[in-house]
Amino acid sequence: MSLGEFDLIARYFDRPVRRARLGMGDDCAILAPRPGTELAISCDMLIEGRHFLSTVDPERLGHKALAVNLSDLAACGAEPLAFTLALALPRADETFLGGFSRGLLALADANGCELIGGDTTCGPLNICISVFGQVPVRAAGTSAILRSGARPGDDVYVSGTLGDARLALEVFRGSLLLDGASFDAVRKAMELPQPRVALGLALRGVASSAIDVSDGLLGDLRHVLQRSGVGAVVEVEALPLSDVMRAQPLSLQRLCALSGGDDYELLFTAPSDRAAAVAAAGAAAGVAVTRVGRITERLENSDPQPQLVDALGLPVWHQAPSFDHFKT
Amino acid sequence: MSLGEFDLIARYFDRPVRRARLGMGDDCAILAPRPGTELAISCDMLIEGRHFLSTVDPERLGHKALAVNLSDLAACGAEPLAFTLALALPRADETFLGGFSRGLLALADANGCELIGGDTTCGPLNICISVFGQVPVRAAGTSAILRSGARPGDDVYVSGTLGDARLALEVFRGSLLLDGASFDAVRKAMELPQPRVALGLALRGVASSAIDVSDGLLGDLRHVLQRSGVGAVVEVEALPLSDVMRAQPLSLQRLCALSGGDDYELLFTAPSDRAAAVAAAGAAAGVAVTRVGRITERLENSDPQPQLVDALGLPVWHQAPSFDHFKT
Repeated sequence: MSLGEFDLIARYFDRPVRRARLGMGDDCAILAPRPGTELAISCDMLIEGRHFLSTVDPERLGHKALAVNLSDLAACGAEPLAFTLALALPRADETFLGGFSRGLLALADANGCELIGGDTTCGPLNICISVFGQVPVRAAGTSAILRSGARPGDDVYVSGTLGDARLALEVFRGSLLLDGASFDAVRKAMELPQPRVALGLALRGVASSAIDVSDGLLGDLRHVLQRSGVGAVVEVEALPLSDVMRAQPLSLQRLCALSGGDDYELLFTAPSDRAAAVAAAGAAAGVAVTRVGRITERLENSDPQPQLVDALGLPVWHQAPSFDHFKT
Repeated sequence: MSLGEFDLIARYFDRPVRRARLGMGDDCAILAPRPGTELAISCDMLIEGRHFLSTVDPERLGHKALAVNLSDLAACGAEPLAFTLALALPRADETFLGGFSRGLLALADANGCELIGGDTTCGPLNICISVFGQVPVRAAGTSAILRSGARPGDDVYVSGTLGDARLALEVFRGSLLLDGASFDAVRKAMELPQPRVALGLALRGVASSAIDVSDGLLGDLRHVLQRSGVGAVVEVEALPLSDVMRAQPLSLQRLCALSGGDDYELLFTAPSDRAAAVAAAGAAAGVAVTRVGRITERLENSDPQPQLVDALGLPVWHQAPSFDHFKT
């Protein structure tokens, strides 16, 4: 292994920047947000065995590492601009680096998001990406879609379908068997999540709040309820599911869709009189959006846990913890 | 251990932001650089056993993790603004977190740099910080001090003293014995580096190029020579050394000062007619600056390795590799 740190960066990651003032090769990168905009910043760390399996195709891993960060920009309605990559590798493995950089940079190009800097070092496999997007400045605060804007009476929506990534994980864990085509489909959901960037942009000025579903619908909805000081009712039979999911036992469907995690769909709210605008945003972005509930008043000091109901409005019992890195 | 991911963030890291539009708790943080400025961004990952010893005091580790990033801003002449922290921890150890956050946030406060977001996860100890600074926009490119601006005839300077961190490492490695007071002094250089932020700001418009010394003076000077397309002569007897270093054998002095690494001093160049302005910048920042050489023309296709000379101008032989994470 003769590939050094600087060769590695030059060969796999260093490309001319077109939007940033200065890319790799200096102490800092220089980024100039477009006048009238401010910067949305997010940062996610992915660790082998916890966020991805050691057997994952490096190209898919490169895709996913950036996708989970772009998903945070999408949830704020921010336009992707640039990202940094810090990468710890046990060794400079060229097969890994070739695939990883290909998957990473293909998704970056597809979203107009350029790599402007980072760090590489030797250590247990760890991928840390910080992503930068821009949102227009607004006189009264930011135009980013925040978690804090949900209001009683708003509808609750989710994009795409829920739970397939968790279904794939159950197959990997050996607790479930799927036929080849079904497994390929749910594995793709787990390994190649599609960040809903176009939908996030289309929802700016329409959605009252948004979050991306990374820890499971219920856990992420709780974050919105906490920040907004509201409650919610979720109609479990309205949750959008894939055909593969619909073929599973009901208890597994509920587990995966409500508490599955790793979905990277947008969970958002909008005033009920904006239903047509929400539908138009989904159509413009080419993503299904489904109404799954509504925001309610929250009684003082009550638990922000959403109420689950069936199609008749009767309570549905469900208990599965949301993901916590230090408790699961 | 009952401390969960969100409690951990709330208890140790979540503080109200004063400069950023939005801090922790949403999908993204929102940062609005001051009008007329652009953003300098840097990112460093620190790994146990490679960048720090497992026995290090958590408070010093917190300081150092941010210091190495602020040092990159300093080398660009950028004013610190904010940072994100991604932290992988084997377990949520409150003693570690208390000390780590105290050291981290004390240095942040001292530099007006606020924590706006990040990620915590369970895994081998890994600290990844991205730091954001601002530099005034200039009509012709950036006002950041880059590695590419050194010109033949410029003087080469370095701040502070060189090599003490390496001396401490040699003690930890068992290859050297120092008395208690000397060890404390060099250990402090290794564990509590002082990022030269004020000096970097004072050098904007004065220095023609700058870099921070993280991999060793020679290796880092090579980066400047490569980016600037020039050569350099370094007077080894002019290198600024601490009293502890001066008491060491000459060969050890040379190794530590030229190829030691982990110094986090600024290595910079300035036109020879700006010597008074350089001295004034050092005085204003309260940091010693020492002239250690000059920039020369570079013959086409020649190795950008700096020439080393003694006080008489005679060549000095030195061979020690610069640090490479995948080669050492």
